[in-house]
Amino acid sequence: MTNLEKYTRLIEEALQGFTLPQEPANLYDPLRYFMTLGGKRMRPILTLLATEACGKNAEEGLKAALAVELFHNFSLIHDDIMDAAPLRRGMSTVHEKWNANIAILSGDVLLVEAYACLGNYAPNSFKQLFETFNRTAKEVCEGQQMDMDFEQLYDVSEDQYLEMIRLKTSVLLGCALEMGAIIGDASPADAAHLYHFGEQLGLAFQIQDDLLDLYGNSAQVGKQIGGDVLADKKTLLSIAAHNLADENQKIALKELATIQEPELKVKLAQELYTQIGAKNYCQTKMETYHNAALNALNELQNMSSKAAFFELADFLLMRKY
Amino acid sequence: MTNLEKYTRLIEEALQGFTLPQEPANLYDPLRYFMTLGGKRMRPILTLLATEACGKNAEEGLKAALAVELFHNFSLIHDDIMDAAPLRRGMSTVHEKWNANIAILSGDVLLVEAYACLGNYAPNSFKQLFETFNRTAKEVCEGQQMDMDFEQLYDVSEDQYLEMIRLKTSVLLGCALEMGAIIGDASPADAAHLYHFGEQLGLAFQIQDDLLDLYGNSAQVGKQIGGDVLADKKTLLSIAAHNLADENQKIALKELATIQEPELKVKLAQELYTQIGAKNYCQTKMETYHNAALNALNELQNMSSKAAFFELADFLLMRKY
Repeated sequence: MTNLEKYTRLIEEALQGFTLPQEPANLYDPLRYFMTLGGKRMRPILTLLATEACGKNAEEGLKAALAVELFHNFSLIHDDIMDAAPLRRGMSTVHEKWNANIAILSGDVLLVEAYACLGNYAPNSFKQLFETFNRTAKEVCEGQQMDMDFEQLYDVSEDQYLEMIRLKTSVLLGCALEMGAIIGDASPADAAHLYHFGEQLGLAFQIQDDLLDLYGNSAQVGKQIGGDVLADKKTLLSIAAHNLADENQKIALKELATIQEPELKVKLAQELYTQIGAKNYCQTKMETYHNAALNALNELQNMSSKAAFFELADFLLMRKY
Repeated sequence: MTNLEKYTRLIEEALQGFTLPQEPANLYDPLRYFMTLGGKRMRPILTLLATEACGKNAEEGLKAALAVELFHNFSLIHDDIMDAAPLRRGMSTVHEKWNANIAILSGDVLLVEAYACLGNYAPNSFKQLFETFNRTAKEVCEGQQMDMDFEQLYDVSEDQYLEMIRLKTSVLLGCALEMGAIIGDASPADAAHLYHFGEQLGLAFQIQDDLLDLYGNSAQVGKQIGGDVLADKKTLLSIAAHNLADENQKIALKELATIQEPELKVKLAQELYTQIGAKNYCQTKMETYHNAALNALNELQNMSSKAAFFELADFLLMRKY
């Protein structure tokens, strides 16, 4: 994992070099706070990885990587308001530590800062980066809106759910890779393959996340197990369970919904979803996306090395459940 | 006013041609609604005016004009949440008609759409437009934060207040003109003069707004007179009144603050602010900015016609009080 460590170090250095004005303090302090909460920096790593795989120095991708990371953090700050989430990475969210108005406005200015990072590139690649970024930013907003809409819907189809997670999560991984490809002067076909790799990997990763939420162990996952079930959140697991259940299992699902005791509810959900075949269904689906991601890599024509992409896919999807 | 009418028509056509996706409806319906609430379209008019004064067809400035108007509407949607404002142009605000989460997210996507409009320009002017737009967008956020901060402050100096309205309002007028100058291939010096014209005109306009709020008549101003006084809002008038008052007038200002009956309060504020000399002070200040704006026009070197700018300044500042 030496390369990933190198990229992570480059990104942390770039984030430290990214300075914001001191005033107005209520606008910029929340951003200074939020940007140091950490995270895996998965998206900017993808940009550097793609830049280098296309034969350029990773450093050349840094400003675009920063744009992606700032955009991601902008969307987290605003999503946290919408979800009324008190914590992010174990620390207070911006709207909790300050207030919702400050979280709205500091999020806004962070989106502007993300755009500004792209201005460091020469006109031709700049315009391509800008277009990729715009398209993705719109899609991420659309995904978040679908996610909010789904909370009010009784029935969400598998296709609707998959489209939501594709927009909310996966397209930004694709964008991060495509931006590296643009900086690395990759052919349009190779840039599209890299985008597709990121998109499919993102879908696999998100489904893994749904599975780990119910079937992982809390030390490994870093959060309480069964949170989605307890919050009655729609996931591919819950949707598959409803779709695959026979008549008796449908009755059991209805009974599950009435259980109040958290530990019992999670344990019964684990058993029932396994029995119905939903767990297995999601594992298969995850593998399908994983394979589609690897196939996209196999399509790449002019890439100095693909090894790092395979390594990354393994790294992201190797967690056991 | 034939030119202004022509520009207004071009902008309304461009807004009608600006179509958004149908889905997710909760993301895009609020924008369709908000963009038809109208407004003077003052900012995009400035862009077209500058484009044409620099010798290009107004049509060439349309996408940048649209970017400015979309940005302005993005900032209104988010400001309305922060101000908990129920009405905008006599109609429900987005967060009132839908909810705050939808207003946050549809505002976000509108900012992205504003950026996307700039992508229609050739690489060289695009990059300049992009940089002007970024700088301004940051400043507008800073101005809004200062405005929110001032609500919690007992003492706001005249300089702080003027800097706040410069950032919150005036820089976007300057930006709108500078973008027209960039599209019209104006010299950097002329682009700077046009920016300065917009900035100073914006300051004059905002001070006029403060004056009209207390001394206008409601039919002319289109809103209740004395709203700022009743909401205990800091304006140049109230700040000047506190700065210029003698000991007796300071006591009268304190008494004014305790009055509950709205009509009486507004009437007494009108009399007291006039007596203290705050009204006169603001009128002089407004004229100073107005003159600075006209001086900036006189500095312009290569402009096919300046007449429209003078006409516009008259148009914006001719309201009587």
